[in-house]
Amino acid sequence: SRDIRAPRGPERTCKSWGAEAAYRMIQNNLDKEVAENPKHLVVYGGIGRAARNWACYDQILASLRELEDNQTLLIQSGKPVGVFQTHEDAPRVLIANSNLVPKWANWEHFNELDRKGLFMYGQMTAGSWIYIGTQGIVQGTYETFAEAGRQHFGGDMKGRWILTAGLGGMGGAQPLAATMAGAVSLNVECQQSSIDFRLRTRYLDKQAATIDEALELVKHHTARGDAISIGLLGNAAEVLPELVRRAKDGGLIPDLVTDQTSAHDLINGYLPRGWSVADWKSAQQDPERHARLKAAAADSCAAHVQAMLEFQTLGAKVVDYGNNIRQVAFDQGVQNAFDLPGFVPAYIRPQFCEGRGPFRWVALSGDPEDIYKTDAKIKELFPHHAQVHRWLDMARERIAFQGLPARICWLGLGERHIAGLAFNEMVRNGELKAPIVIGRDHLDTGSVASPNRETESMKDGTDAVSDWPLLNALLNTAGGATWVSLHHGGGVGMGYSQHSGVVIVADGTDAAARRLGRVLVNDCGSGVMRHADAGYETAIACAKRNGLNLPMIK
Amino acid sequence: SRDIRAPRGPERTCKSWGAEAAYRMIQNNLDKEVAENPKHLVVYGGIGRAARNWACYDQILASLRELEDNQTLLIQSGKPVGVFQTHEDAPRVLIANSNLVPKWANWEHFNELDRKGLFMYGQMTAGSWIYIGTQGIVQGTYETFAEAGRQHFGGDMKGRWILTAGLGGMGGAQPLAATMAGAVSLNVECQQSSIDFRLRTRYLDKQAATIDEALELVKHHTARGDAISIGLLGNAAEVLPELVRRAKDGGLIPDLVTDQTSAHDLINGYLPRGWSVADWKSAQQDPERHARLKAAAADSCAAHVQAMLEFQTLGAKVVDYGNNIRQVAFDQGVQNAFDLPGFVPAYIRPQFCEGRGPFRWVALSGDPEDIYKTDAKIKELFPHHAQVHRWLDMARERIAFQGLPARICWLGLGERHIAGLAFNEMVRNGELKAPIVIGRDHLDTGSVASPNRETESMKDGTDAVSDWPLLNALLNTAGGATWVSLHHGGGVGMGYSQHSGVVIVADGTDAAARRLGRVLVNDCGSGVMRHADAGYETAIACAKRNGLNLPMIK
Ligand SMILES: NC(=O)c1ccc[n+]([C@@H]2O[C@H](COP(=O)([O-])OP(=O)(O)OC[C@H]3O[C@@H](n4cnc5c(N)ncnc54)[C@H](O)[C@@H]3O)[C@@H](O)[C@H]2O)c1
Ligand SMILES: NC(=O)c1ccc[n+]([C@@H]2O[C@H](COP(=O)([O-])OP(=O)(O)OC[C@H]3O[C@@H](n4cnc5c(N)ncnc54)[C@H](O)[C@@H]3O)[C@@H](O)[C@H]2O)c1
Repeated sequence: SRDIRAPRGPERTCKSWGAEAAYRMIQNNLDKEVAENPKHLVVYGGIGRAARNWACYDQILASLRELEDNQTLLIQSGKPVGVFQTHEDAPRVLIANSNLVPKWANWEHFNELDRKGLFMYGQMTAGSWIYIGTQGIVQGTYETFAEAGRQHFGGDMKGRWILTAGLGGMGGAQPLAATMAGAVSLNVECQQSSIDFRLRTRYLDKQAATIDEALELVKHHTARGDAISIGLLGNAAEVLPELVRRAKDGGLIPDLVTDQTSAHDLINGYLPRGWSVADWKSAQQDPERHARLKAAAADSCAAHVQAMLEFQTLGAKVVDYGNNIRQVAFDQGVQNAFDLPGFVPAYIRPQFCEGRGPFRWVALSGDPEDIYKTDAKIKELFPHHAQVHRWLDMARERIAFQGLPARICWLGLGERHIAGLAFNEMVRNGELKAPIVIGRDHLDTGSVASPNRETESMKDGTDAVSDWPLLNALLNTAGGATWVSLHHGGGVGMGYSQHSGVVIVADGTDAAARRLGRVLVNDCGSGVMRHADAGYETAIACAKRNGLNLPMIK
Repeated sequence: SRDIRAPRGPERTCKSWGAEAAYRMIQNNLDKEVAENPKHLVVYGGIGRAARNWACYDQILASLRELEDNQTLLIQSGKPVGVFQTHEDAPRVLIANSNLVPKWANWEHFNELDRKGLFMYGQMTAGSWIYIGTQGIVQGTYETFAEAGRQHFGGDMKGRWILTAGLGGMGGAQPLAATMAGAVSLNVECQQSSIDFRLRTRYLDKQAATIDEALELVKHHTARGDAISIGLLGNAAEVLPELVRRAKDGGLIPDLVTDQTSAHDLINGYLPRGWSVADWKSAQQDPERHARLKAAAADSCAAHVQAMLEFQTLGAKVVDYGNNIRQVAFDQGVQNAFDLPGFVPAYIRPQFCEGRGPFRWVALSGDPEDIYKTDAKIKELFPHHAQVHRWLDMARERIAFQGLPARICWLGLGERHIAGLAFNEMVRNGELKAPIVIGRDHLDTGSVASPNRETESMKDGTDAVSDWPLLNALLNTAGGATWVSLHHGGGVGMGYSQHSGVVIVADGTDAAARRLGRVLVNDCGSGVMRHADAGYETAIACAKRNGLNLPMIK
């Protein structure tokens, strides 16, 4: 069994920093600190792989070692299929993963090809070699909460409180993200073990023993403007209605309500009202009990959503966090379930309209100091970007690096290329010990078509139009990114999304500076373009402010 | 109403020949000699458009006139959506047309978006500005017949005869293509008007009055090795069984049998046995009679396929030409209908394995002499390529130019870039009066995933894997093509295919030569790679012969 760790430092194995960056990043994706199941080449997200199999993996590394600075390696669903002559300003690697002709774009056909060794699931950043661990989920949740602060609470979440439930794999990021955003949070979770895990890793600050104590703590800390997270053991379908009752009696009303229980999976994901966790677990194991479990879970989801809707009536901001709980409640007869907006249209899209999204970078030196220097540089470059400063401070303090030191930081159009060029300069003048790799998630402003998530409810109804991510990939290739990828499926599964990735290396050369100046503007610029085309006023204004040339927008 | 004609000659309106080439080719696509319905911007193939609407069309031209040599214009389903900074070696235009996230990739959703002015059908070469009229269908059919000659008859079709039916819009190319391939052809058609049209335009040489006369003519001309096409008025579902009967009685057995009646459309496309054409037409107009018409047509298709199968047993080579007649017969109970191979796996794929496909070029001078000079150059460059020489001679003689003079000619890996570089040299040294635009159909070796047509029955079962056309588009962008396109739908409709196009201009400069040398190798090289990856021995051999670097193929 292999124990993979990317090479570090300023000495290259490959013939160019472009190839070297890919060489290190595919290995970093499979570092056991980073990947969920490196033995099976699985990086994250169920079966998202970095390469199709070990033979392909080995050959990818071998081909990268040989790759000339005017050649391009093609990867087809995790397999290195060809090396072609291009030029220095072209990508070193081009990747297409998991793409199927639409009528065949389903799990059955995927599985058949996968079983035969002919295919691979690329997820988003697994097959495109720019996954860097769990920092991303904390940051994404932080941005959601921070945007709520900007939209509703005059700038930030200070003195505000967030009510949510679910402290599982992804939901466990909520208390830390809320704290980073400056809010108090009350996190309802039905399993003590999940609470314990988050207390131990300092994602959660404290646990309240009762609802009364929880509300006392909320009151105390919001009054003082503390950013503190509070866990509460309980069933959300019981706790939320009780909190509504108290609120109506003059009690506290949360500022923001959301939920990350796994309501999308009614067998394994949602504890029904009145059930013990032990009984729930045993029913999960017994197929004969599944029908009753499902019915009970769905009924409880309905009560849960009902309470969320009542909070909305009482003046709280309430959003669905992509766990399908609205649909479950709606199917149970809660006709106004979809009065709760999704988190993307509510809080992510306004940022996409400005080209903001999950920008990230990695220090090829392997030295955490390099990242801290880039953190400081960002603060220097954007002295008035309070949300970013808060994020960088908290991230440094609270988030452990996994694999090569890396930083995620949402920057927008007009900012990303400034950062990229500054990093390139720091590599050139020796401030940093080795080049910096710059990339982003596929979930970004111009790079994804996914009607059930990122492009839900687009203003003009173009949720399903996937011309945009394709143009994004072509444009990044034309601009000279170091590698570019086109994937299908990603987080929402076969048939439901198409998206593209981009990575570009800052190696301190003039040539890299020219490429960075193009690619980091074009990549998020094409997202602003896509939203301007759909009619979002803020995107149109952002395009004008940044001097984008959008011929049909006058 | 507009009357569009592309500018001609050596003077540019735009700032570079790259932009100028796009500027002229979009206009040429809408020339009334070229387009089927230019008033509605429809180029061909039902609703395949060159631009979304007239406002978009005007703005595309305006943006191209302004475009700098280091900028790239983005086209999203026929609309010019952005101009971005790239570099001189990057494409001037990047196009994505009609792409939808798979679960929404159907006609209903397409139509909804199209009605709202949010979308456009790009077909293959309509929305990517490299359609050049009907020369393509003649050439495609010619290549099919010529390949049959190579595979079965020791090199060519001389002295051989082809039996087919249907002289409609596409099928009418069969007699001319057969003649060009050196064969005698017997073409059964049930409408005298269709026969008359093809006689008038010299696509068909003569008409036989009876089956006896037809067989006499076949015998006479095959014996002499003439390439002569013969029409016969009749119903294929009656004529073919009769020909089988005679063959079994010691009569003539055709060398190759195929069919291009419109069996895919049982209301409008296939005349049932025993019906008069007049009765057929009136039944088409009367929905009450449709059920009976369909049943009768299907029953006749079964008899037709039965006869084709009997010819197969008698030793003839028999192929389906993509009109769905096998499926119709199978549904009628002809259990071995699929013993007849499709024409792609049988005759097109062997060429794709060598990178051969519908290469084409256009003279921006507008002068037919420029094309004749390129014809002569091709013959000079490939002195032993008999099939190509025959095609070029016959094409010059028999095919009228539509719009800008153009030539289609199937060349393969190792040939296309030789041709492109030679043309570039001819532009440089003044032999040609203006630059040459070089492109191809989307139906080509490395550029399409279409499980019901181009990628039917791939050896390894990867018919539906669309990573390949995406990689093809990315690679051509990386190599520096002049424009690159990614389309969905094309000839087989929403949900059934994804494909990419490429166009590159030879303007006589050194920079163009470098780009041509890369792109024309990579584009068809990636097709050879795709087929080698699927396990085709000839593709593997071709890759080795041409020195392709395919890392997993040892
Ligand atoms: N759309 C997005 O981008 C996005 C992002 C993050 C999470 N999500 C969704 O959020 C959900 C949670 O994700 P996860 O990875 O954390 O799941 P998970 O299954 O790991 O965690 C769910 C947690 O909820 C708890 N829980 C279940 N029922 C409960 C109840 N009635 N009351 C209180 N707690 C209860 C469980 O004990 C568990 O700890 C999923 O549906 C996921 O799809 C979506
Ligand atoms: N897959 C491909 O790439 C490809 C290429 C070319 C054609 N095709 C298929 O070939 C078919 C023909 O295309 P088209 O554009 O020429 O169609 P069309 O409708 O214009 O022509 C069909 C012709 O067949 C004749 N016909 C109908 N029934 C007949 C019968 N029983 N006996 C004799 N003649 C009969 C009609 O009179 C008509 O002239 C279509 O199904 C098309 O899809 C497929």
